[in-house]
Amino acid sequence: MQHRAQEVIDLCRELAGFTEEPGHTTRTFLSPPMRDVHRELGSRMEQLGMSVTVDAAGNLRGFYPARTPGARRVIIGSHLDTVPHAGAFDGILGVVMGIAMVDALTSLRMPFGIEVVGFSEEEGVRFGVPFIGSRALAGTLDETLLGVRDSQGVSAADAIRSFGLDPARLPEARMADNTLGYLEVHIEQGPVLESLNYPLGVVETIVGQSRLIVSFIGKSGHAGTTSMDLRRDALAAAARWITSVESIAQSTPGLVATVGRLEIDPNARNVIAGSVRASLDVRHSQDTIRHQAVDRMLKEAKQTATDRGLKLEEQQQLDQPAVSMDATLVKRLAQAVKTAGYPVHHMSSGAGHDAMILATKIPTAMLFLRSPGGISHHPDENVLAEDVTAALNAGMHFLEQWESHLD
Amino acid sequence: MQHRAQEVIDLCRELAGFTEEPGHTTRTFLSPPMRDVHRELGSRMEQLGMSVTVDAAGNLRGFYPARTPGARRVIIGSHLDTVPHAGAFDGILGVVMGIAMVDALTSLRMPFGIEVVGFSEEEGVRFGVPFIGSRALAGTLDETLLGVRDSQGVSAADAIRSFGLDPARLPEARMADNTLGYLEVHIEQGPVLESLNYPLGVVETIVGQSRLIVSFIGKSGHAGTTSMDLRRDALAAAARWITSVESIAQSTPGLVATVGRLEIDPNARNVIAGSVRASLDVRHSQDTIRHQAVDRMLKEAKQTATDRGLKLEEQQQLDQPAVSMDATLVKRLAQAVKTAGYPVHHMSSGAGHDAMILATKIPTAMLFLRSPGGISHHPDENVLAEDVTAALNAGMHFLEQWESHLD
Repeated sequence: MQHRAQEVIDLCRELAGFTEEPGHTTRTFLSPPMRDVHRELGSRMEQLGMSVTVDAAGNLRGFYPARTPGARRVIIGSHLDTVPHAGAFDGILGVVMGIAMVDALTSLRMPFGIEVVGFSEEEGVRFGVPFIGSRALAGTLDETLLGVRDSQGVSAADAIRSFGLDPARLPEARMADNTLGYLEVHIEQGPVLESLNYPLGVVETIVGQSRLIVSFIGKSGHAGTTSMDLRRDALAAAARWITSVESIAQSTPGLVATVGRLEIDPNARNVIAGSVRASLDVRHSQDTIRHQAVDRMLKEAKQTATDRGLKLEEQQQLDQPAVSMDATLVKRLAQAVKTAGYPVHHMSSGAGHDAMILATKIPTAMLFLRSPGGISHHPDENVLAEDVTAALNAGMHFLEQWESHLD
Repeated sequence: MQHRAQEVIDLCRELAGFTEEPGHTTRTFLSPPMRDVHRELGSRMEQLGMSVTVDAAGNLRGFYPARTPGARRVIIGSHLDTVPHAGAFDGILGVVMGIAMVDALTSLRMPFGIEVVGFSEEEGVRFGVPFIGSRALAGTLDETLLGVRDSQGVSAADAIRSFGLDPARLPEARMADNTLGYLEVHIEQGPVLESLNYPLGVVETIVGQSRLIVSFIGKSGHAGTTSMDLRRDALAAAARWITSVESIAQSTPGLVATVGRLEIDPNARNVIAGSVRASLDVRHSQDTIRHQAVDRMLKEAKQTATDRGLKLEEQQQLDQPAVSMDATLVKRLAQAVKTAGYPVHHMSSGAGHDAMILATKIPTAMLFLRSPGGISHHPDENVLAEDVTAALNAGMHFLEQWESHLD
């Protein structure tokens, strides 16, 4: 598999050249370079005997038939779109891996068909709406999406038409009723596997997520003439609160909480901050633990504001429940990793993935590859050839497991 | 004096209409509306028997002669320029008050001449260099200033020429050798007098000031996938430090310390901050106390960075010593306030003023008027008529004190 792994990496790097911005990798939903990716991957799939289509949501779909016609099918995939100035592996690695696994079958047919899907949209960059591709397969795409406009004023319906597709045919993008399940291979996009020195991780849960805006409203004032006791410094208040948020997260196993963005008014060297709008992002695999943590953080914010004579405003932007992977598939994927000769590490995914959408409809499993330096969404994003080898081996064993457990 | 006080306020409000930006009060060094202010104030000064000139630095200077020719003189003044979108009183009130005091003499001559100066530049808006006007009087104007360019690419020398003045004559702007001293009346620009319910404050010291940039350099990362123990969150570190800065300031009497500006990279909701550049502004009337406080704050920053595996960078931008007002004049001004029937409150000025520049050359005193709401550098900036009355009364007693103490 080592040679094949290197081919996977080389192809991902080659496809990173298909971009809207020369010198960077930026490839959003239904953008012109997406057509180039479809062409390249489509032609490889056809060479492997797969039938290739692009559905009305812009998903690239290649079908490798089963031994017998009308058999059930397994979907392997991930997404083809990127964030602006992306790396070469987030998303597309899982699609290329799907094709590599079909290739590794060396024309052998399984008792189930294999559909490799390159989802058109996961990152939510173009329309501010993520998971467009996988929602089309799951049949959970909100029809109002078609009216949403991108920054150029183009509606999603028009974008679909411009790409040569027909929005009226979106319902046909739904996955086949007899789909057995979904496997997604993806880079971890975090430092955990590297810190443990494991090549692979078996995802058990995609964490739930709370997103809030917490605003401290104080009073701006002259940095020189306002004595400390007469201040209502919104940044000093926010700073104290950020420290509490960090403490709560550190003392809650498995929880991550991030204040990543502050809007400070006026944000001037010699003026006491009048107001601060702080983002809060909290994630955990158990929704009750997450909700309790958010409650504690908001209580701290209120207390900090009250103690200092400030006003507090809070605004919840997202409360997305955790999504569990299928317990049986998780067990089989762990077994496959073990059979391939690698240590098994169960973990949560701290980021959302297409697997989260499909898991609401069909049994779903997800395999993580170590991210060197924990780096993702950045040109330095990388994977190790040995880890791709490990994932290919584990993936093939997983397909075997599936075969042996078919009724 | 009540009627006169209302006239002072009305005139300040009228002059606020001379602006570079209609709808706002913005009047920078040698801008066209400065000419209108010179015309209005100059004509009033001439009506009072004053001889009026504009020196090569653009300062408006009106001289009210003494009883006898060749007598010494007292300068009363403040600045005529404003910050962008300013109020109607910062600076110009002190000039109008000087004229009102001459008016209140009702043609009586003193044993000293009175020169009322409207400084051309104090705020440092146009050329990024403050105190141009008062430095010209003090003879401490750095000649390199003439080459500095504003945002339109106009050099200070050209700005002076465009205003009809001759930069070669700048040395002539120096104040007369026989100047007895300087009095500046200015709004407090802070909330202290209002919180104490005092109309006036006698300034003892203009605080010294340290300005630094303190940068925490961590590592950005995905807010979902990076566990708390693997983070090097620059914003969390900065937040903890801001809390320490506040504590140190609160526990050091008379000290003010402000972190007012953060540059957070990337400042995104779902990304752990990789770096934060924080401004630090520390002021105190005693330089040793200020230096000790800054040292403690930097030590805390280093400790916070070290504890968290971050890098710290610090950059000192300013270390400006405190400037004392003249002890004798302070005593006399306090006596004048008392004689006028008002409570005496000695205080530091947390902001820089022209008095700071002149105090290095001649005995200088400064009288603060309560700022309603502590508001300044804002259209809501205000003064109370009763406080202007108080200041006029105190100012006249101060001139009497000076007269009685002349040798």
